[in-house]
Amino acid sequence: MDFREVGRRLSNWGRWDVGGHRDERGTTNLLTPERVVAASALVREGKVFDLGIPFGADGPQTGALRINPVLTMKETGVDQHLPGGAHYSDDYVFMPLQCASQWDGLAHVYYDDLLYNGFPASDITPHGTKHLSIEHQAKGLVGRGVLIDVAGHRGVDWLPAGEVITPDELDAVLAAQGTDLRGGDILAIRTGWRRKFLAEHDPASFMAGEPGLGLASCEWLADHEVAAVCSDNWAVEVLPGEDPAVLLPVHLVLIRDMGMTLGEILDFEELAADCAQDGRYEFMMTAPPIKFRRAVGSPTNPLAIK
Amino acid sequence: MDFREVGRRLSNWGRWDVGGHRDERGTTNLLTPERVVAASALVREGKVFDLGIPFGADGPQTGALRINPVLTMKETGVDQHLPGGAHYSDDYVFMPLQCASQWDGLAHVYYDDLLYNGFPASDITPHGTKHLSIEHQAKGLVGRGVLIDVAGHRGVDWLPAGEVITPDELDAVLAAQGTDLRGGDILAIRTGWRRKFLAEHDPASFMAGEPGLGLASCEWLADHEVAAVCSDNWAVEVLPGEDPAVLLPVHLVLIRDMGMTLGEILDFEELAADCAQDGRYEFMMTAPPIKFRRAVGSPTNPLAIK
Amino acid sequence: MDFREVGRRLSNWGRWDVGGHRDERGTTNLLTPERVVAASALVREGKVFDLGIPFGADGPQTGALRINPVLTMKETGVDQHLPGGAHYSDDYVFMPLQCASQWDGLAHVYYDDLLYNGFPASDITPHGTKHLSIEHQAKGLVGRGVLIDVAGHRGVDWLPAGEVITPDELDAVLAAQGTDLRGGDILAIRTGWRRKFLAEHDPASFMAGEPGLGLASCEWLADHEVAAVCSDNWAVEVLPGEDPAVLLPVHLVLIRDMGMTLGEILDFEELAADCAQDGRYEFMMTAPPIKFRRAVGSPTNPLAIK
Amino acid sequence: MDFREVGRRLSNWGRWDVGGHRDERGTTNLLTPERVVAASALVREGKVFDLGIPFGADGPQTGALRINPVLTMKETGVDQHLPGGAHYSDDYVFMPLQCASQWDGLAHVYYDDLLYNGFPASDITPHGTKHLSIEHQAKGLVGRGVLIDVAGHRGVDWLPAGEVITPDELDAVLAAQGTDLRGGDILAIRTGWRRKFLAEHDPASFMAGEPGLGLASCEWLADHEVAAVCSDNWAVEVLPGEDPAVLLPVHLVLIRDMGMTLGEILDFEELAADCAQDGRYEFMMTAPPIKFRRAVGSPTNPLAIK
Repeated sequence: MDFREVGRRLSNWGRWDVGGHRDERGTTNLLTPERVVAASALVREGKVFDLGIPFGADGPQTGALRINPVLTMKETGVDQHLPGGAHYSDDYVFMPLQCASQWDGLAHVYYDDLLYNGFPASDITPHGTKHLSIEHQAKGLVGRGVLIDVAGHRGVDWLPAGEVITPDELDAVLAAQGTDLRGGDILAIRTGWRRKFLAEHDPASFMAGEPGLGLASCEWLADHEVAAVCSDNWAVEVLPGEDPAVLLPVHLVLIRDMGMTLGEILDFEELAADCAQDGRYEFMMTAPPIKFRRAVGSPTNPLAIK
Repeated sequence: MDFREVGRRLSNWGRWDVGGHRDERGTTNLLTPERVVAASALVREGKVFDLGIPFGADGPQTGALRINPVLTMKETGVDQHLPGGAHYSDDYVFMPLQCASQWDGLAHVYYDDLLYNGFPASDITPHGTKHLSIEHQAKGLVGRGVLIDVAGHRGVDWLPAGEVITPDELDAVLAAQGTDLRGGDILAIRTGWRRKFLAEHDPASFMAGEPGLGLASCEWLADHEVAAVCSDNWAVEVLPGEDPAVLLPVHLVLIRDMGMTLGEILDFEELAADCAQDGRYEFMMTAPPIKFRRAVGSPTNPLAIK
Repeated sequence: MDFREVGRRLSNWGRWDVGGHRDERGTTNLLTPERVVAASALVREGKVFDLGIPFGADGPQTGALRINPVLTMKETGVDQHLPGGAHYSDDYVFMPLQCASQWDGLAHVYYDDLLYNGFPASDITPHGTKHLSIEHQAKGLVGRGVLIDVAGHRGVDWLPAGEVITPDELDAVLAAQGTDLRGGDILAIRTGWRRKFLAEHDPASFMAGEPGLGLASCEWLADHEVAAVCSDNWAVEVLPGEDPAVLLPVHLVLIRDMGMTLGEILDFEELAADCAQDGRYEFMMTAPPIKFRRAVGSPTNPLAIK
Repeated sequence: MDFREVGRRLSNWGRWDVGGHRDERGTTNLLTPERVVAASALVREGKVFDLGIPFGADGPQTGALRINPVLTMKETGVDQHLPGGAHYSDDYVFMPLQCASQWDGLAHVYYDDLLYNGFPASDITPHGTKHLSIEHQAKGLVGRGVLIDVAGHRGVDWLPAGEVITPDELDAVLAAQGTDLRGGDILAIRTGWRRKFLAEHDPASFMAGEPGLGLASCEWLADHEVAAVCSDNWAVEVLPGEDPAVLLPVHLVLIRDMGMTLGEILDFEELAADCAQDGRYEFMMTAPPIKFRRAVGSPTNPLAIK
């Protein structure tokens, strides 16, 4: 299966262009007002689950590809002499925007010199990206979220690295969970990779590979009109990949051809336990990026609300 | 009016302690499950408003107190030779956590060597804060949001710097808007200060002072059991302050005595226009911080959903 | 005078290539061992002058082009419990490499898609530069330094912005100082611009323009076989430039065509006072860059030793 | 041997105070003008050796204690449209000041709440240090440098971690080299630890321990009136230390009691080869720090000139 061929077939280029305006949002266009209203009806008990992981020195980065956030204190309150006796603290951070829980912007990957919707790769310069900035997702990803707990369904703590999650397995998990899919859903795929990190605290092992989606799932996601997909691993897709001659084919098809943003390095542990308990794997999800100018990704702390 | 006296009177210390566990969340404890469910019923049209401002070099910081975020590209896609022809982009940021739209953590200000709920000021070290970290607000601020459009009510683009917004005026605006307050509300106070910045693009003028709440409003916020307050200015409270001998008294009482987190440098322009049009100033609000470890604040991009 | 024409005439491309190895050092090749030995003979009194300015928040950057260094403390010694009672402090910095006293690397400017010695502009990527990195000046600029105190000769605190220093004036100052030039000299041109900053502490005014060299001086520098030129302003050359249709022509000719590194934002105040006193404007100069990998510039703190 | 007792005996507190001015330079006061002049006479062949290591992602830091420098490009020349066709590149760095070749400032370590010369530990705040800043070494360390090639003398590539270099061995190496010591010398102690890193490229192993000076050498350094000591390992002193109950005792005595700055993570490979060849282990050394305001350390690229 050639990813370029798959990409051509599933392409959403032009689909959401209106008049002369070329779309820069991709599949989050599927998050229509009607679907937002419908999602809000899923809030029944008022439980809130935060899906972002902590941003700190204990994060999953090894320093090879990216570093963990470095937080330093500019003020701790000492050595201040303010009127009335006030003291304040203040902190700075240096970090890759994609070092922990994050949304990929639609300019994050490309091939053959073109980004999603035909924007030229030259749009990405040292000044950031001219099109497809994460700012275009500013209103967040608000809609119906669906957890697909693959690790839970298999009854394992986590799937092994390199394990492909197939469309058949996705269907089987959904069936077992009693969850249907609807257009515009935001999928949360639990592989157990976060649990592995929490158990082992081993960034090198976390980053060395991962279980995840294969190329066949791209069509499945397109067929179900999925608005976005996120996972508890660091790249959504399986690593090492199915074809050693291609790096990140699922990224390339989903982001560059279909215009689908990916959420990575999330934590579904508490949510999954709750879903297993009440048998309800659907929820309202609100997951805004921070509006970094011309950025190709953003930290996020998505909320699942049941 | 002495802020220490006000603080003593309005103190929430111990109020949400349970068993031996000392509370670190403050007034967001008021965001109960029932109130979350009730807030979700405010989603009727599926409109989403993003209240965060862009994070970039064009932000409101002058460099004196804080700098604007500096985004640099680690990868733009050039000079890569990956299997299959994949290219990726990646960005880094260096910034103060409180340089743009942000939540103050409960360790952000203190006086007399004590933080909220009696934690010692020595909890704040170069390693961050040991208690009251922004992580404690990880589940976000989810609840009923209410816009109090003071500038809109006055019919001005913005209030002048140094102008105190009094409890009487807050009541008057709410009455004119036809909005009631309920326990656990998240208040969004529009002073027009963001509009000023959008009109002038002048960080020095934006930071030189601002209209905002005075000390009398602390009691008003306490009486109404407000869960959090946010504003389109940079400190919620009026600057220069009412008493030149005291800096940031409203911060000190709200954060340190009452345990109320403040949201700053937000953008209510689009939201206010919509509220003015349909006369409905209430909405569901979800406003998660990024979970920075041991941090005293966090960037945020709150969503108002109607 | 067309800078491209001047550049072609003064080009050093190929001059220092040896065998198949293309030169990446430029005019610092003129700093021969003989000249280093000769320079050491200028050390007669053991006086050391540090020509670097302080790196801090009080630097000359406005935030428009670059920011001043941001230093944060990772450790101050508090909140440490080390065996034996040891405490340590540690600091981090975020800064542009060219925000204060610095050497321009030979990949810092270019035109017509070519860098010095014909290296392609595509050598500069988000990963840094493949050729002409500042690392090639790692052994520093060691040689005979000569101060040309233009402001002192004119008897003014500083020359006005936009004032061109001509070859005739350089000759006149040297003659008045009684200083001859020799091949391989490192020139320090004092315009008074640092004194202006020390008097005014006004970054906006410091950066708005400056007195400096014009295009005619390029030939003069070439004729005298100068190894490097540095100044107390921020770009060596006059700003606004002589021709409004061309930005930084002196940079382009000196760096890109001649391969001459420029030292900027230095402080000659103490040195100039000493030279005026003893009438000796020559000294041994050692000015190593920090060896940043693939960098296009570097902070420096040059020493003049008399 | 109790390090506090050794420190009391070797203390230089008050030694260089003049009038009411308390000294903040320590043993670099020994770098007198006469000694600078004498050092310049060691320049005989005009050979320059750069002792700094490269600053880059391939540095020796593991991320546990410190990270390696992160260099990002703000400009590469693309996406610029400047008058006349000029293009420029520009880079930013984020780094600990002590992540690669560096001088420890005299506020870098302390015990019993006092810094060198009795300054209080409270001088070190999140704003940096009020006294003993690295700025006090701004004129650099200029003087006679002496290489003590311990690894070379032993005939090994490197000494093992935990190996103590004793005063007797220092004397033996000097005798074998035919080098005498004079007051005000800057010592460069070669353990081979840099060679180990160049051979193995293994930061974890480089940082896990090191051969180096023990507590007994403090007295030896004091007796010889040494102005500064530097090494090719990362802490000058042996690690693990001689007494497991005390961390960094040599740091504490040299820096806090004697006021001696330490140079760390240097590269003597090329220099040592040259010294072995001509039998001359002395040279002029110029090693300025970058003048970071209120900093407790600084990057450096020392030059040895023969």
